Amino acid sequence: MNPIMPTIPLDADGIHHGFLKLPHSRNDSAWGSVMIPITVIANGAGPTALLTGANHGDEYEGPIALQSLCASLRPEQITGRVIIVPMMNLPAFAAGARCSPIDGANMNRSFPGRPDGTVTQKICDYIATVLVPEADIVLDFHSGGKTLDFLPFAAAHILEDKAQEAACMAAMQAFNAPFSVRMLEIDNVGMFDTEVEGQGKVFVTTELGGAGTATARSIAIAKKGICNLLIHADILAGEMEQSESVQLDMPDARCFVFAERSGLVEYLVDLGDDVSDGQTIARIWSADRTGEAPMLCLAGCSGILTARHAPGLIKVGDFAGLVAVKI
Amino acid sequence: MNPIMPTIPLDADGIHHGFLKLPHSRNDSAWGSVMIPITVIANGAGPTALLTGANHGDEYEGPIALQSLCASLRPEQITGRVIIVPMMNLPAFAAGARCSPIDGANMNRSFPGRPDGTVTQKICDYIATVLVPEADIVLDFHSGGKTLDFLPFAAAHILEDKAQEAACMAAMQAFNAPFSVRMLEIDNVGMFDTEVEGQGKVFVTTELGGAGTATARSIAIAKKGICNLLIHADILAGEMEQSESVQLDMPDARCFVFAERSGLVEYLVDLGDDVSDGQTIARIWSADRTGEAPMLCLAGCSGILTARHAPGLIKVGDFAGLVAVKI
Amino acid sequence: MNPIMPTIPLDADGIHHGFLKLPHSRNDSAWGSVMIPITVIANGAGPTALLTGANHGDEYEGPIALQSLCASLRPEQITGRVIIVPMMNLPAFAAGARCSPIDGANMNRSFPGRPDGTVTQKICDYIATVLVPEADIVLDFHSGGKTLDFLPFAAAHILEDKAQEAACMAAMQAFNAPFSVRMLEIDNVGMFDTEVEGQGKVFVTTELGGAGTATARSIAIAKKGICNLLIHADILAGEMEQSESVQLDMPDARCFVFAERSGLVEYLVDLGDDVSDGQTIARIWSADRTGEAPMLCLAGCSGILTARHAPGLIKVGDFAGLVAVKI
Amino acid sequence: MNPIMPTIPLDADGIHHGFLKLPHSRNDSAWGSVMIPITVIANGAGPTALLTGANHGDEYEGPIALQSLCASLRPEQITGRVIIVPMMNLPAFAAGARCSPIDGANMNRSFPGRPDGTVTQKICDYIATVLVPEADIVLDFHSGGKTLDFLPFAAAHILEDKAQEAACMAAMQAFNAPFSVRMLEIDNVGMFDTEVEGQGKVFVTTELGGAGTATARSIAIAKKGICNLLIHADILAGEMEQSESVQLDMPDARCFVFAERSGLVEYLVDLGDDVSDGQTIARIWSADRTGEAPMLCLAGCSGILTARHAPGLIKVGDFAGLVAVKI
Amino acid sequence: MNPIMPTIPLDADGIHHGFLKLPHSRNDSAWGSVMIPITVIANGAGPTALLTGANHGDEYEGPIALQSLCASLRPEQITGRVIIVPMMNLPAFAAGARCSPIDGANMNRSFPGRPDGTVTQKICDYIATVLVPEADIVLDFHSGGKTLDFLPFAAAHILEDKAQEAACMAAMQAFNAPFSVRMLEIDNVGMFDTEVEGQGKVFVTTELGGAGTATARSIAIAKKGICNLLIHADILAGEMEQSESVQLDMPDARCFVFAERSGLVEYLVDLGDDVSDGQTIARIWSADRTGEAPMLCLAGCSGILTARHAPGLIKVGDFAGLVAVKI
Amino acid sequence: MNPIMPTIPLDADGIHHGFLKLPHSRNDSAWGSVMIPITVIANGAGPTALLTGANHGDEYEGPIALQSLCASLRPEQITGRVIIVPMMNLPAFAAGARCSPIDGANMNRSFPGRPDGTVTQKICDYIATVLVPEADIVLDFHSGGKTLDFLPFAAAHILEDKAQEAACMAAMQAFNAPFSVRMLEIDNVGMFDTEVEGQGKVFVTTELGGAGTATARSIAIAKKGICNLLIHADILAGEMEQSESVQLDMPDARCFVFAERSGLVEYLVDLGDDVSDGQTIARIWSADRTGEAPMLCLAGCSGILTARHAPGLIKVGDFAGLVAVKI
Repeated sequence: MNPIMPTIPLDADGIHHGFLKLPHSRNDSAWGSVMIPITVIANGAGPTALLTGANHGDEYEGPIALQSLCASLRPEQITGRVIIVPMMNLPAFAAGARCSPIDGANMNRSFPGRPDGTVTQKICDYIATVLVPEADIVLDFHSGGKTLDFLPFAAAHILEDKAQEAACMAAMQAFNAPFSVRMLEIDNVGMFDTEVEGQGKVFVTTELGGAGTATARSIAIAKKGICNLLIHADILAGEMEQSESVQLDMPDARCFVFAERSGLVEYLVDLGDDVSDGQTIARIWSADRTGEAPMLCLAGCSGILTARHAPGLIKVGDFAGLVAVKI
Repeated sequence: MNPIMPTIPLDADGIHHGFLKLPHSRNDSAWGSVMIPITVIANGAGPTALLTGANHGDEYEGPIALQSLCASLRPEQITGRVIIVPMMNLPAFAAGARCSPIDGANMNRSFPGRPDGTVTQKICDYIATVLVPEADIVLDFHSGGKTLDFLPFAAAHILEDKAQEAACMAAMQAFNAPFSVRMLEIDNVGMFDTEVEGQGKVFVTTELGGAGTATARSIAIAKKGICNLLIHADILAGEMEQSESVQLDMPDARCFVFAERSGLVEYLVDLGDDVSDGQTIARIWSADRTGEAPMLCLAGCSGILTARHAPGLIKVGDFAGLVAVKI
Repeated sequence: MNPIMPTIPLDADGIHHGFLKLPHSRNDSAWGSVMIPITVIANGAGPTALLTGANHGDEYEGPIALQSLCASLRPEQITGRVIIVPMMNLPAFAAGARCSPIDGANMNRSFPGRPDGTVTQKICDYIATVLVPEADIVLDFHSGGKTLDFLPFAAAHILEDKAQEAACMAAMQAFNAPFSVRMLEIDNVGMFDTEVEGQGKVFVTTELGGAGTATARSIAIAKKGICNLLIHADILAGEMEQSESVQLDMPDARCFVFAERSGLVEYLVDLGDDVSDGQTIARIWSADRTGEAPMLCLAGCSGILTARHAPGLIKVGDFAGLVAVKI
Repeated sequence: MNPIMPTIPLDADGIHHGFLKLPHSRNDSAWGSVMIPITVIANGAGPTALLTGANHGDEYEGPIALQSLCASLRPEQITGRVIIVPMMNLPAFAAGARCSPIDGANMNRSFPGRPDGTVTQKICDYIATVLVPEADIVLDFHSGGKTLDFLPFAAAHILEDKAQEAACMAAMQAFNAPFSVRMLEIDNVGMFDTEVEGQGKVFVTTELGGAGTATARSIAIAKKGICNLLIHADILAGEMEQSESVQLDMPDARCFVFAERSGLVEYLVDLGDDVSDGQTIARIWSADRTGEAPMLCLAGCSGILTARHAPGLIKVGDFAGLVAVKI
Repeated sequence: MNPIMPTIPLDADGIHHGFLKLPHSRNDSAWGSVMIPITVIANGAGPTALLTGANHGDEYEGPIALQSLCASLRPEQITGRVIIVPMMNLPAFAAGARCSPIDGANMNRSFPGRPDGTVTQKICDYIATVLVPEADIVLDFHSGGKTLDFLPFAAAHILEDKAQEAACMAAMQAFNAPFSVRMLEIDNVGMFDTEVEGQGKVFVTTELGGAGTATARSIAIAKKGICNLLIHADILAGEMEQSESVQLDMPDARCFVFAERSGLVEYLVDLGDDVSDGQTIARIWSADRTGEAPMLCLAGCSGILTARHAPGLIKVGDFAGLVAVKI
Repeated sequence: MNPIMPTIPLDADGIHHGFLKLPHSRNDSAWGSVMIPITVIANGAGPTALLTGANHGDEYEGPIALQSLCASLRPEQITGRVIIVPMMNLPAFAAGARCSPIDGANMNRSFPGRPDGTVTQKICDYIATVLVPEADIVLDFHSGGKTLDFLPFAAAHILEDKAQEAACMAAMQAFNAPFSVRMLEIDNVGMFDTEVEGQGKVFVTTELGGAGTATARSIAIAKKGICNLLIHADILAGEMEQSESVQLDMPDARCFVFAERSGLVEYLVDLGDDVSDGQTIARIWSADRTGEAPMLCLAGCSGILTARHAPGLIKVGDFAGLVAVKI
């Protein structure tokens, strides 16, 4: 049985702020706990939305928009229930890191988890077996974290169940980020996405920025998206705020460029710029000497630069760029 | 006597790539060295420019633009000499950190250094006593590093010697960044700037971006600035490329906003946005619970947001925002 | 097959001091071993007692009393056999830590272990499959470690097999600590207790103090308890030394108080003090500012304060207090 | 000039909670600060008391009693001024460590400090040059920290200026801890005590417990002592609460016992117990094998055990015990 | 399915240098990869040899000889194919450590690995399921690493399949190291050797030196051995270079001597020296005091000293010496 | 005044084993000490020899030979006094590291030290002001440590005082290592050598091996050298054991070869091999890819290879080789 206990009721009307409390015995606290903040806002019968942030601990648009939502959304504004977990991977979030410092795990490769596993596995199991089954629609926020940077997009997956896929795509369009991506996940083992979709739920994910920061602009995209999604789900009343969203596709592996040398990386194009097949998107200079020719990173297809490596230094094998194709 | 030895001549015509070699005995190399890359390009009599990057190791526009310069500038293009040290604080640069991992020192608070001091002090002493005296004009690149982000500007200091000040301001205008700042440094002890200016040289510094990254746009500003500066200094022939630069001032301490609580920071305005006195520029949310009111960070004057804290998490006492005033 | 080999015979008469030798290849010793000290004292036919300490590496009454026993007990004083493992979790003990620094594991959540698992799992497997089956009675010493502090008590579990339970309770009373606790373990998976009891043995455990230290008084409790237990088990001759022991019960989860805020903890009552339901047992002050109201930790039932958090700083989710009820 | 700036006025009537703000540029915050909490309570003309805690960061009676004081003392209760710095060595306090994690310094060996030194030196300099000169009487709280444990005592030093000594002794007696110690500091270089006494102020210090914890009883001693001291200094009205205090002396180096072997330490006497010259106060057992004779720690004089090593493991050269003599 | 993808074809004629690319998401690179260098040299139909180094990351003869081979062997010199992986455990090799810094695993105890396991397990799985099946003969280089030192030998295992054993022994003799060892592996679980032999391949392993270094002499043994082996396997043309090789046997556990005390180790005999049963091969002095008698390490059989502990300090349980018997 | 106190008399006849006790307050021991083992053997009037090891903590011939001497030399064998400090830099020795883990200092660059400095500076000051003045002759043992390896030599310096130089050279020849080196120290600031010679003493130093290990052969050189030196100094009676010693010179900076690239280093010659000017002594291969040409390390003069880098990996700027010239 999963050892996590909520300190608040998950199904009571009104607004409750509390924790998912996970006992965690360790050197610096023999009878300590991991305390994952949670807010539940409920008002009568209706659908349930589960909104999650900090699946990766260094991605900030989700936690900020969700903290703001916890502090501003009132039960009387909604019909149904909104379950908000702004820092789902609290240990990673507290460390400002992608992965949990407790077990080193990448949460988005740890689903469905185990009730008797590591701390990350226990959190995944609780979310997968307690929270997700309660939900009709799930929105999980991602950004690039400290080492990647993205054009702001919402995404939904190509699924075998075409009705479910259509519902997910509709929710993604409702979210209405500046860019929208229809994704075929090749290797989806262990992802939260996979778990939620496997339970037949409507699922939307995002990539809203990165470099370990968040801007007023990227946070506004998150806030607008939440609002739109709750309206779309018939939980919140009102009109959705919609503007044009560029539709992107990532047809195959040629979209992805990787570094073949470690060094200091000079980007020649920025996110959103047009790129043509074979164009040099970045040059990697030696980090320990001058006078050596740089290694070139070449685009494998034509499109727009959709993601890049954020830090100034890059290592052999690191992702260098993603060129997506406008549909 | 300073133990650093260059592996190339500093005064020979042509182009030479090498190192400033500093013996550094340590656990993992009893007779090891710190090797700071240097390139000298010289062609006959004429002025000398000293161009430096990575004074702070996590600021990338300088190192990238200077590595590119080392690989592209040919002796026959110039009159005089260009001394290029793209990663002046090599240990910090290699670690991707602001300060040196060897002695923890902030290089820009370690000048004029000591020939028998720590590694950082030895590097400072060598630069101050060997390289700077050779130079007529010095350009030192900065950006915000991993924890700050800036509007791109070049800057020169208000100096007692008004002729020197005018020469520095002229060089700053020649650099022609999108923004230009006339600065009064209150606490200038230990800075490279102070050392160079104290030797009567023309000195320009910059802040070109931050968040531990560099963009094609911010790198282009650095490259254009170098080119303009070398033309301005009569080292390179040709026409300067000039566009409008917004002139900024930071009159007093009210321009600076600091965090009075640790937590998750939500910016309500972005770099370049207009801000009025008393406006909330950011809200700091609790990082360990939901349902608590955020602490507000208020602007102390009207102007435009010129710098901010980059990471999503902020600590009590951290810098939160700089509101500069357009002149 | 478990790779641990004892360097002494486990079944020979006389006294033998040696090691349980566990091969452990690692960076700093390719062909190294973990060496767990063990002493076996035997004299003819009779029952076997297994005495263990440092299941958690920062709990000291057990190791001290058992080291003293190894140096003072003579074979001719006993009938049967005493197997003494004063530092069962040697890697944790050597590090002065609750958990093993090698694999991070909490030994008391790692039973029954695995012969091909991590270092902690291998030790658990060896103890469970080789030592415990040899024993008629097992005494495992615990204290609060560096982060908890306890009133000194011996404890036995409520078991399904009532005859076994009665034997355990009798052994606990023989131990005769100042306090005696009859415990219902809710979540007993992975505990040494569970393994030993599952093999049908008589089992006694203790909590004798904490805060990472041991006093002359708490060590004397351990020494008297060992002596009494060996007499009770017909291994040692003589009269038990018995005084009054306060009988305690921990009926349900309301006995346990947890911190809901991180900060500086001020206890208002001490171990052994009477507490009434709803009483403030501790106040948590901010650790980074003055002038904020503290958060209160309230008792959930009436009784005496039996355990507390030891360090001056406390984190959200940490155990704050245990209020047990006198029977 | 010392870079620390208070965020509150130090001389205004009423109660002000704020920070001593020390700019501290570092890898994880280029423009960060160390923020040391301070409260000033003032009411008209009268003497000034400076009350400090966490000179060593792992000593808790002082910070707790002073945080409580900041939250409970009202301006109208006093005449004059009380300056309270509950966590003087904030970086060490935040780390739960004796010494500062920033520069490794022991604050009580870093006075008078330097305005351009390390973080600890800057804090010392500010306290020595700004706060102490304002004070008539200074009370600095100490306890044993994580590695020592003490009988609770207040102490004053034997000074060359006998009038000052008498004033200090009177203040110590006013504090009225269970034990009172008249100390001759042999090596007083760098201590806060020395700095304050050198400025001619009345100074009292304490050792109130240790082992990295604080009890209701030891905190009550601190609170009573503060109250008594403020009454004694004519800042607070009312009657002092006084009971008997045992007077102790530590005549020479024979009072101190050190470990000559590393291992597991077994104390044979507890704090407050009588000890005679040559008595074994502790035995040190091997930490890696059984069956070896322990090394004995012998008292060098007769008296009562006044301090001891707290952790269960001890290293060669560690302090093992202090035997003080009742006067 | 194993996520590793080669960046070069494994079966194309000619010479190809590339990487085995293993996606590895982590804090410092969200979409990073482990890049294991590989070279494939092929020329028409013929046998395949798989040559591997740095199974343990601090053993250097293999990586050096194989890097040299990658740079010098030309396709036209061979018939068939040579697959060269000079740093099989790249993460450990890059760290200069025996085990992988990513998961702490000892690669030679991690076979056959898992396609969905840790980084080390994924590498093992790829090698076991993709590379080994392609090979007719496999040569895996070992040395003592940083903590052991060996006489230079090649080795083959005693196997149940006597025809396979004979083929392995023949290959070992072809390698022709100065010493040759016929080994019975008692505990062979998880070894690369076991995996390769289990697939029915001809397998040779080595121990060529140690102490974390390599000499011109030990490298020459590796290079000659490779050449001889490729000739023996009919991949390379030419005459094998053969000299006398001393045949050694390690009949039982008495060959191995372990340290029973931690301290400073003084060897009284060197590698290659004759040793008789009961002879003191090393003395262990106290590392923290003078004047104590050393503990003696005694040989358990007669023979020649074949391996020893390399560092000057030794810990209880560390391997101290191996005395092998000449056949 | 230096805070170090010896626990034994330094001038009493007979043999005394004890410690130099240096108080060292730190997080894990508030009143702890650094305990440096020392043995003094004295017998009536006569000269004093000071014998020291582990100036660098990872060099083992000295500590081993001196520990052996402490345990075997009897007062009645000598005339005068022998002061033995086998692990002078005890903190570094205990850590198995060149430099002290407490302050990071290289002891052999920290003389003459400071009585109020860091731990290393205090040790240096004590040795320089208390022990060296007592001595007539000083022998300080060095080897290559973990990162260098040397041909075994004793050395004496070219000094301004030619009589002192001659006495040192004579003592070096008495030591009679297989190689003897007459050295001109260019940068001798901070060395123990410089301090001792500055006090007019006879001084001999050595380099006897390296790679962080010691062999029976290299230890025998140390033991023979001590014996010879004590006979030469008229402290020990008997005949010196002398064999041929090769005389070496290191005329100028061309003897030293440094790495200009980081990578995997392949030595083509071994210690003691003849080398000619321009010969490739080592090749540096890429550590992260195959198929790249190695960088060559070329000898700058003809002679024999006298020292080399020990680990298999090398970094840009590391020492690669020393070619000394036979006289």
